[in-house]
Amino acid sequence: MSANLGKSSENMEVKEVLHMTGGDAENSYVKNSIYTQKLALATKPAIERAVNSLLQEPIFLCKLLNVADLGCSAGPNTFAFMSTVIETIESSCRGSGAKPPEIQFYLNDLPGNDFNTLFNSLSEFRRNSLGLSFFVMGAPGSFHERIFPQNCLHLVHSSYSVHWLSRVPQLMTAQGLPLNKGKIYISQTSPPEVKEAYLAQFQEDFTNFLQYRSKEMVVGARLVLVLHGRQSTDPAIKESCYPWESLAEAISSLVSEGLVEEKKLDTLNVPYYTASLEEVQQIVKQEGSFTVEHIETLVLDIGGPLSGEEDPWISGMKHAKNVRSFTGSIIQHHLGEEVMDKLYSEKLAYLIGEDLSKQPIKGINLILILRRHS
Amino acid sequence: MSANLGKSSENMEVKEVLHMTGGDAENSYVKNSIYTQKLALATKPAIERAVNSLLQEPIFLCKLLNVADLGCSAGPNTFAFMSTVIETIESSCRGSGAKPPEIQFYLNDLPGNDFNTLFNSLSEFRRNSLGLSFFVMGAPGSFHERIFPQNCLHLVHSSYSVHWLSRVPQLMTAQGLPLNKGKIYISQTSPPEVKEAYLAQFQEDFTNFLQYRSKEMVVGARLVLVLHGRQSTDPAIKESCYPWESLAEAISSLVSEGLVEEKKLDTLNVPYYTASLEEVQQIVKQEGSFTVEHIETLVLDIGGPLSGEEDPWISGMKHAKNVRSFTGSIIQHHLGEEVMDKLYSEKLAYLIGEDLSKQPIKGINLILILRRHS
Repeated sequence: MSANLGKSSENMEVKEVLHMTGGDAENSYVKNSIYTQKLALATKPAIERAVNSLLQEPIFLCKLLNVADLGCSAGPNTFAFMSTVIETIESSCRGSGAKPPEIQFYLNDLPGNDFNTLFNSLSEFRRNSLGLSFFVMGAPGSFHERIFPQNCLHLVHSSYSVHWLSRVPQLMTAQGLPLNKGKIYISQTSPPEVKEAYLAQFQEDFTNFLQYRSKEMVVGARLVLVLHGRQSTDPAIKESCYPWESLAEAISSLVSEGLVEEKKLDTLNVPYYTASLEEVQQIVKQEGSFTVEHIETLVLDIGGPLSGEEDPWISGMKHAKNVRSFTGSIIQHHLGEEVMDKLYSEKLAYLIGEDLSKQPIKGINLILILRRHS
Repeated sequence: MSANLGKSSENMEVKEVLHMTGGDAENSYVKNSIYTQKLALATKPAIERAVNSLLQEPIFLCKLLNVADLGCSAGPNTFAFMSTVIETIESSCRGSGAKPPEIQFYLNDLPGNDFNTLFNSLSEFRRNSLGLSFFVMGAPGSFHERIFPQNCLHLVHSSYSVHWLSRVPQLMTAQGLPLNKGKIYISQTSPPEVKEAYLAQFQEDFTNFLQYRSKEMVVGARLVLVLHGRQSTDPAIKESCYPWESLAEAISSLVSEGLVEEKKLDTLNVPYYTASLEEVQQIVKQEGSFTVEHIETLVLDIGGPLSGEEDPWISGMKHAKNVRSFTGSIIQHHLGEEVMDKLYSEKLAYLIGEDLSKQPIKGINLILILRRHS
């Protein structure tokens, strides 16, 4: 998971601030990526499908397959992705009697990602992956820029990353007043300009993303994308605003207790966008380098109690920790470290817990397989 | 700087223990790599020479040049190497009017290396390197094993790394008694078996190193190696035993104070070898994949007082810190953390200071440019 660039209204360089919490301690991303683990399992068939369809292309006759995972973070999902690729290729080659290619995996994330933890877990992964010959590289950089040489990648995967924008949209009036007061993302109460600015930023970023990737990928290569998205045409619908709506409410509660300045909340907006399938398809079509080979919407429980017997309040705490592991770097940059524990472990955990006691929270995910055409 | 593998007499997995001290604090490698910085400056002409001779090969007509730095650590020397490559290619292409290739740098070191620090310094380096289009990857792994796919590298560089062995030679008698009592490397008092075992280990490791690289490099590619070596045929000569002889003496002093068990010193030997030019040449010839294009010996002051006015005792302290930054991980693994400060800041600093007050310490370096022949 990753994102990037530009100056926000608060002069935040997203690519220098955003990262999943490193290490493997209590608040780390590695320990709090239950949802993305669930998602990795659910998207496995799409990866298998992309690899199998790639194996039908003549380019596969090359001896080396270059595979990139964009926004890999440092958690177990990166290894799940690599395993799926290796197993699918092994099984296909066993079936056809073909000699399997060497695989070079490029694991990409922003330079602030915890690559040390990632690299240190590699030897364990290698020990459990006999058979195919593969090599693993780290590729630090933002996917909102070029990362790889021209014409070298055969398979590119990015899960739960491309919804991160390169920068926060400009959300000020001509008079320099905040447009999105009391909120940090699109909300029911946001004026239409907020929605328009977010969509425009996503259109720009996703178009650039496709252009950079089309330069880096060979003709016939496959791009597998998993994005947090929405089903409704309305971007302010509840399911597409999780966790930002609850987080804004939690910060608001700190404001009313005098722990955070109101101005801080009013000028905080997150570099993130939950697109609809139609928005994504239209950008792919307009950009023009890729053909849509497969597209689907996958609905998963984000925040249902993890087991029927689990207390929703305990579940609220778990989910608040999870949210902290991927939003913490950005929120802390804006509000300061001193309020972080109270914000997440107390305020946010309570709000999510309360939500969960009413109904499970759904996560809408868009899955796309794109083919780089000639 | 890097090394690797196998079980030593103390069951130490070199590749899991050895690393330059990470971060950028007082004891870090980044802050203590004065000597290797001096060395990087002195070996710049050899890198320029290798790049220029590579540019004469037809393989250079490819649009992508893959360049690897093996044992890159996290210090400024990695950036010095990349700068030299970029500048040399830019200058050559400016002269000939040819379109410069894209460059993909692979920065290799053991997984325990501080890649986070390395990647975080990259953006500064990028800002200062306009012009040529290049991409930087981290390649975690041991160069005593395969790191890269077949037939993909055009230029490979390794400075001050290949003298690290994959494992400590077997230095026990048939009865299980230590052969190299009171020493941690070849010494004047070591029995001949110690010298033989170290040479045999170097021959095995360097042969494997060349074989793995020959698989990874294209025909016509260049391999530039800088090794700590020696001029004398005698491996126990003082200049080739720095800093191990002083370090053994420093540990010995802790033994006599009861702070370290004698047995610990007797069973400690380091995975390191200072080869002679003849030994290296003979292995290259026997292995058979490379032609020697250039070979030289470079003598540098390691431990002369840094300026004429500097007190040798202050200089002793500086050099002890430097030695700690590249030997610390291995020594600490064997002796434990609690004696580290006393060992380096007190005992070793004193011994080196005393040495320096008599005469400067010389470092002998072997520089080789090898061509991968068909």
